Amino acid sequence: MPPIKIGIVGLGKIARDQHLPALAANPDFELVAVASRNASLEDAANFATLEEMLAGVPELDAVSLCTPPTVRYGQARQALQAGKHVMLEKPPGATLSEVEDLTRLAEASPGSLFATWHSRHAPTVAPARKWLASRQISKVHIEWKEDVRVWHPGQRWIWEPGGMGVFDPAINALSIVTAILPRSFFLREGTLKVPENCQAPIAAKLRFSDSEETPITADLDFLQTGPQTWDIHIETDAGNLTLRKGGSQMFIDDRLEHEAPEQEYPGLYARFAELVARCESEVDVAPLRHVADAFLLGRRETVAPFHDES
Amino acid sequence: MPPIKIGIVGLGKIARDQHLPALAANPDFELVAVASRNASLEDAANFATLEEMLAGVPELDAVSLCTPPTVRYGQARQALQAGKHVMLEKPPGATLSEVEDLTRLAEASPGSLFATWHSRHAPTVAPARKWLASRQISKVHIEWKEDVRVWHPGQRWIWEPGGMGVFDPAINALSIVTAILPRSFFLREGTLKVPENCQAPIAAKLRFSDSEETPITADLDFLQTGPQTWDIHIETDAGNLTLRKGGSQMFIDDRLEHEAPEQEYPGLYARFAELVARCESEVDVAPLRHVADAFLLGRRETVAPFHDES
Repeated sequence: MPPIKIGIVGLGKIARDQHLPALAANPDFELVAVASRNASLEDAANFATLEEMLAGVPELDAVSLCTPPTVRYGQARQALQAGKHVMLEKPPGATLSEVEDLTRLAEASPGSLFATWHSRHAPTVAPARKWLASRQISKVHIEWKEDVRVWHPGQRWIWEPGGMGVFDPAINALSIVTAILPRSFFLREGTLKVPENCQAPIAAKLRFSDSEETPITADLDFLQTGPQTWDIHIETDAGNLTLRKGGSQMFIDDRLEHEAPEQEYPGLYARFAELVARCESEVDVAPLRHVADAFLLGRRETVAPFHDES
Repeated sequence: MPPIKIGIVGLGKIARDQHLPALAANPDFELVAVASRNASLEDAANFATLEEMLAGVPELDAVSLCTPPTVRYGQARQALQAGKHVMLEKPPGATLSEVEDLTRLAEASPGSLFATWHSRHAPTVAPARKWLASRQISKVHIEWKEDVRVWHPGQRWIWEPGGMGVFDPAINALSIVTAILPRSFFLREGTLKVPENCQAPIAAKLRFSDSEETPITADLDFLQTGPQTWDIHIETDAGNLTLRKGGSQMFIDDRLEHEAPEQEYPGLYARFAELVARCESEVDVAPLRHVADAFLLGRRETVAPFHDES
C-alpha cells in the first residue's frame, strides 16, 4: 500500500515535539502539507489555513489536527466532508455535544475519525488491562500531581473557561483508567478547588464508583513541586498493581514487572494507519465525559489566587 | 394484551401530582405496588424499598423511578437486572457516565429503559418539528425565566452540587429544542451567574451553534417575578415560529396556530407502553449533555447571595 498522504493543521509545540518525529519514523505516512497561520515547514507544501490546504493538495488522504480544541470542530467537519481521514489531538473537542456531532458525521463519511488519547499508548496500558481482566478489583486510587509552572509556564488559557485547569493533565489519567478497568465507572462526589482569579480548578478530589461499588478515588494537584507524581494504584485479590510515571512503569506488589521507553505518539500513528486501512473510526469520549461530570456534579471551593511567576 | 403491572418508586410531589393521575387514566397500566420510605398508597402493595418490592411482587413488569437523580442509578440497575422495564424521571442521572452505563446494561437486558423528558410531550413539539423540517432556520432564541421562590420554595437541594440551579427548569427547554431542530447544536460560550452562597447558577446566558453556524442563544433566569416566560423563538425563511408557555402554544408570525391542554405525563406513559410492547429502549442524553457542557465550558460569575424568604 502506498503511504498515507497526510497534512498537519497547527504547527505549535505539540506538533513539533511529538507529531513530526512520529510521522518521520513511520513509513505508512508521508507528510505532504502543513496548514499554520504563523509557521512553516521545509519539505512540505505550506498553507495558511486548512481550507487552502484541502484546495491546494487534492491528493491528501488524511489530516491531523494539532490546533486548540475550541477550533477543532469546524476543521474536523471540513476535512471529513472533503472525504479525508481525521486524527484529533486530545481532548477531542471543547464540548461533548460537538464530539457527538462529529462522530455522527464520521459514520456517514468515507473517512475515519480518530479521537486520540496519547496516554493510552503508554507501554504498560495493554499489560495492565490484561493483568486486571482476571482479577477481582477492590480499590483504585489515582494520584496525578504536577507543577503547572514547570509544564505550562505562562499558559493563561489553561485557567480560562474550557481550559480545564488540573484536568488538562488529569484527563490523561482518566484515559488510562477507563482503558484498563474491566467495568465503566462514574462520579459520586467531588471537590474542585478553584483559585479566586481563575475559572478552572487547580486541584480536585474525586470519588467514583462502578456497578460493583468499587471505591475509585482521584487526588489531583497542579501545584506539586519536587518529585512529580503520575501514579495509579489498584488493589486486587491477587496483589496490588501500580502504574508509575504516567504508565511507563508497571509494578505488581512493588516488583517492577514492565518498563519501556515512552512511545505514545508513534503508537497513535500506528493505530491511525490501521484505522485508515480499515476505514474505521475510533472515538471514545469517556475521559472527557468524566471531566464534564466533575464540573457538573463537583462542589467548588474558592482558594488563593494563582500567579504564574515564570 | 393484559395491562402492564407497574410499581412506582418514590412517592413524592412529582409522583402524586403527575404519575398517579397519568397511570390512573391509562388502561395499558395497572399500578400494583409502591416503594417509599415515608409514604404509602391505598389499593397498592406498599414496600419500604425497591428491593422489597421486587421480592414481594414477582409478577411486576415495570417500575417507574420518581426518586432523586442521585439514587436513580442503583435502582435502575437493580430493576433492569431483575428483568423489569424501567422509566426514569428527568434528568436520567446525576452524571452522564452513569446514564451511559445504564444504557449499555439495558441493551443487554430483556427490559426497556425509557429516559423521559416530559416537555417533549408538550402539545406543540410534534407540529413544531414538522413545520421546521422544511424551513431554513436563521436564528433561535430560548427565553426561560421563572421565579424559583414560587416553583421551588425552600428546596435547598437545587443549589447544591448536582442540583443544577436554573438548569433544572432550563433542561426542559433544551429537551424541546433538541427535539424540534433538524440539526444538533453545541455550546460555543456561556456565562453562568452563581450566587456566592450557592453551588449552582441562578441565571445563565448561552450561545450555541450548529454545523451551519446558526446562532442559537438562551437567556435563563431563576429570579423572574411577575409574568413567567417559557418561550422559544425561531426565525426561518418562511416566517417566525414561537412556542410559548413551555410548548402549550405555537405561534407562526404571532398568529396562534396550535394550542392544547397540557398532557405531558399521559404522553410519557403512552410512549412507555409502546416501548414496553416492543421491548425497545429510548435514552437521549442530549439535554443533560448540554447542561454538562455549560458547566464545563461556561464562565462563572459570582453574584449576590440567594436567600429563600418563603
